[in-house]
Amino acid sequence: MPEAVRRHAFGRVELQHGGVPPDAQLTYTTFGTLAPDGGNAVLFPTWFTGQHPQVEWLIGPDHALNPEKYFIVVVNILGNGQSSSPSNTPPPFDRMRFPHTSILDNVMLQRRLLWDVLGVKHLALVVGRSMGAQLAFQWGSYYAGDVDRILPICGSARTSPHNYVFLASVKAALTNDPSWQGGDYNFQPFQGLRMLRLIYDGWVLSQSFYRAGLHLKQGFDTTQEYLDRPDAGPMRDANDLLAQLWTWQHADISANDKFHGDLPAALRAITPRALVMPCRHDLYFPPEDSEIEVSHMPAAELRVIESVWGHRAGSPGSDPGDIAFLDRSIADLLSS
Amino acid sequence: MPEAVRRHAFGRVELQHGGVPPDAQLTYTTFGTLAPDGGNAVLFPTWFTGQHPQVEWLIGPDHALNPEKYFIVVVNILGNGQSSSPSNTPPPFDRMRFPHTSILDNVMLQRRLLWDVLGVKHLALVVGRSMGAQLAFQWGSYYAGDVDRILPICGSARTSPHNYVFLASVKAALTNDPSWQGGDYNFQPFQGLRMLRLIYDGWVLSQSFYRAGLHLKQGFDTTQEYLDRPDAGPMRDANDLLAQLWTWQHADISANDKFHGDLPAALRAITPRALVMPCRHDLYFPPEDSEIEVSHMPAAELRVIESVWGHRAGSPGSDPGDIAFLDRSIADLLSS
Repeated sequence: MPEAVRRHAFGRVELQHGGVPPDAQLTYTTFGTLAPDGGNAVLFPTWFTGQHPQVEWLIGPDHALNPEKYFIVVVNILGNGQSSSPSNTPPPFDRMRFPHTSILDNVMLQRRLLWDVLGVKHLALVVGRSMGAQLAFQWGSYYAGDVDRILPICGSARTSPHNYVFLASVKAALTNDPSWQGGDYNFQPFQGLRMLRLIYDGWVLSQSFYRAGLHLKQGFDTTQEYLDRPDAGPMRDANDLLAQLWTWQHADISANDKFHGDLPAALRAITPRALVMPCRHDLYFPPEDSEIEVSHMPAAELRVIESVWGHRAGSPGSDPGDIAFLDRSIADLLSS
Repeated sequence: MPEAVRRHAFGRVELQHGGVPPDAQLTYTTFGTLAPDGGNAVLFPTWFTGQHPQVEWLIGPDHALNPEKYFIVVVNILGNGQSSSPSNTPPPFDRMRFPHTSILDNVMLQRRLLWDVLGVKHLALVVGRSMGAQLAFQWGSYYAGDVDRILPICGSARTSPHNYVFLASVKAALTNDPSWQGGDYNFQPFQGLRMLRLIYDGWVLSQSFYRAGLHLKQGFDTTQEYLDRPDAGPMRDANDLLAQLWTWQHADISANDKFHGDLPAALRAITPRALVMPCRHDLYFPPEDSEIEVSHMPAAELRVIESVWGHRAGSPGSDPGDIAFLDRSIADLLSS
């Protein structure tokens, strides 16, 4: 069981792309205890649409991320509705007036949280999936000396142009809904959120997943029935989703004062041991991109998840074999 | 140069999925002359959003489809705005009241056009891309005795569940636009058509195409600029697009009185020589699907187009090398 959910307020924070929210906050939870020598800390940030409770599927006494051994910090990314977000920030920085936040903004605030608040002085591992993987790459590059290992799952060091195009359609799904009203809605833009899910349905799983009929295993007779299924899980706030989409579209570990857009240099700086785990059938973080990124990294292994689950490979509720494979891989990396 | 564009009216036609339009019509054009023995006829139907002038890129004295040698009939598919469509059918079968038309409806009308109007008694080849490829499969299966060869490019014998999901998002792009008004718009639903193009931008080309920056070769500095480009080409009618999307989503060469949904049986019936040409990086007609289909076909060769152009491989305006490869492949098949 995690400790209680906590929130830390940083006060005035200068963001990378302008905008100075007066009181940026990170919401987080922890598992286990920090060792006296501080050598057992693991950071596990959330991903697009994810929130801290969803991260627990890889944490527990039966997992590599064992709270009896590790001090695991799960941090909500900015814009996800738990940490500072359009939906929970007071005017004048609320809704679409919430400033753009970058992957590096997240990483810098996480470092302040870990170092200044939680007493962590070194990270044994940063692990994350999707946008969380982008944070892991950023940590390994920007704060290479502070991290022993990174394990990015189904993510990239820089958002590819193709991924950017896909995300542009996801953004438009929300902003095209007339009830979105430039972000100043009274009720969530329901049609836009449905459209987002529909577009996602095509991208987040793979052709092979659907070919095998795995989408029908939940009790649907036809693909159309599957598409017409009721919404599952909590409704997310449209402006929060848009904030996260901006962060994702502009993710680039080299877009900062250290690397000035030189991605190979930013990748070469990842001296922590890295296990880079794309899924064979991920349609927007394809393994070809990971292969190119790994080729620039001095201490990285590429380990492809051979799964038809596409971008969802190894995620909560996906194939147990893939999750076990991830778990073993985390153990491998931690023992190396 | 083609002969003038012609239109044939069939009068009352019973469609496969119900609905009896009083005067279904096919618009078509021809190149070359039918040989006295009738052995040189080639059918080349259009594809989703395509119209007859676009088919000319593979026809000419320097191409395998040489009008000096072959009598080439280019037929517009139902719903494409040239043949009977929501936009050109009078009430009460106009707009969204236009009945659903199947791949087999198209094929049956095309056969009547060729046999009863144009005097064709046998087809040397049916070649088509995308939905046109689906028609070629249907011809080869349903009218196997009437066709010597088929060459489906970037298409499938049955629309896969994954393809269905992608198309559902394309449909919703149009029907979610409030100005669509259930099909009874006075002006085209512009936002929906833009959204359709945006969703298509992610699917129709490949990750590798964008990775290579080929989308920027048209003079754009950023991916966002590329997405914001002005619309190219003629505006299509939203209801026409929806009619074609219905046909595509429900494409299945076995969904008829001969094969009763038994796809392997419908594929085994394709005794004409077949050259099946998917593109390596096609995101919605992936070569894995073609491989499975070809495995059931008695006289088929799988020949993958190794191109980053994805679903656009070999299409008008795409890589000249791919187009030349297609051209040679058509020549190979015609000489076999």
